[in-house]
Amino acid sequence: MSTCTARVLACLHENGVEFELVPVNLFNGEHKQPTFLAKNPFGQIPALEDGDLTLFESRAMSSYVAEKFKGSNGCDLLRTQDLKEAALVKTWMEVESQQFSPAISPIFYQLYIAPMRGGSPNQSIVDENSEKLGKVLDVYEKKLSSSKYLAGDFYSLADLHHLPYIYYLMKTPSSKLINERPHVKAWWEDISSRPAFKKVIPGLTLGEK
Amino acid sequence: MSTCTARVLACLHENGVEFELVPVNLFNGEHKQPTFLAKNPFGQIPALEDGDLTLFESRAMSSYVAEKFKGSNGCDLLRTQDLKEAALVKTWMEVESQQFSPAISPIFYQLYIAPMRGGSPNQSIVDENSEKLGKVLDVYEKKLSSSKYLAGDFYSLADLHHLPYIYYLMKTPSSKLINERPHVKAWWEDISSRPAFKKVIPGLTLGEK
Repeated sequence: MSTCTARVLACLHENGVEFELVPVNLFNGEHKQPTFLAKNPFGQIPALEDGDLTLFESRAMSSYVAEKFKGSNGCDLLRTQDLKEAALVKTWMEVESQQFSPAISPIFYQLYIAPMRGGSPNQSIVDENSEKLGKVLDVYEKKLSSSKYLAGDFYSLADLHHLPYIYYLMKTPSSKLINERPHVKAWWEDISSRPAFKKVIPGLTLGEK
Repeated sequence: MSTCTARVLACLHENGVEFELVPVNLFNGEHKQPTFLAKNPFGQIPALEDGDLTLFESRAMSSYVAEKFKGSNGCDLLRTQDLKEAALVKTWMEVESQQFSPAISPIFYQLYIAPMRGGSPNQSIVDENSEKLGKVLDVYEKKLSSSKYLAGDFYSLADLHHLPYIYYLMKTPSSKLINERPHVKAWWEDISSRPAFKKVIPGLTLGEK
């Protein structure tokens, strides 16, 4: 269900990596128990174990997967072969992290997490962050009118990192933020129809009865 | 004066890179003019130009500098020679970005930016985020009791990215958040005394009369 976990799963599937998904029960606080805190001292999902290496923070995990398994099926989501392309991928990964996520995550929280906790969405938080997100997406709209993907004419980890939050947003009235912007909409339809992400979608059931 | 710019400058100095620093006048809105928006469509400093490549987002810029100029003076802040060490550097870079900065930046804003704009610090925002930051630093304290730096026994970009915010924090009563934690304090004294960062300090004059 988790957006951060979905981010890493999409990357694992893109690179054709075999893995085992071990659920963590957030509802009984398993992520705050010593066993999980030994994997991630911040007590947040997901964590990744590969041999004796344990990682946390979804964006670091996907970067590690993209680096380690690059080329395994012709895939190189970090564009490691070209220093300039790699730098542009990093730039737009940071845009996702510093501009996009801080605007969309409060909307996601209000529309999905607050109701799950028995509350109702705070519309003024949704509105305030929708305005913020709209401004970010205005920049995306302009960028995507001159290149097919965010970092250039190639799909990269920068695009992939956006998938889970937008997926959930599209099931709400806030989908208009995407649909009103034709290049953003076309980009979303492209990246969300990739086979790797389609394998992740069945698990994204937050908000379903 | 800018924390984000200082982050990149520290990295440039660590790698012994020659560069030209071009000031942008935020007070007359130069960063919102077309000339600067062509460099960073989000209208924020800093931006980096290297030949025909233009980058923005400070953490992407420092990663690019660390990658391109690695080894130029024996320096490899991303530990690119070891996949596992590189993954741990990325993990702690993400911790800085996702856990540390969201807690310290509102404190920085209240103590430095609000007064500059003619307001006074909102103490309840400072208190709330000091509690958040304290919890993050508790994890650092534990980590730094078992390794000299965040990602291991080597200085990396993950440590470097913390420098500007902590530097400004240390000039305020909130410095106790660092000083109360012996391993964090020792780490801070170590990383802030590196010659590369000492070259940046004279410019960090925000809040000075």
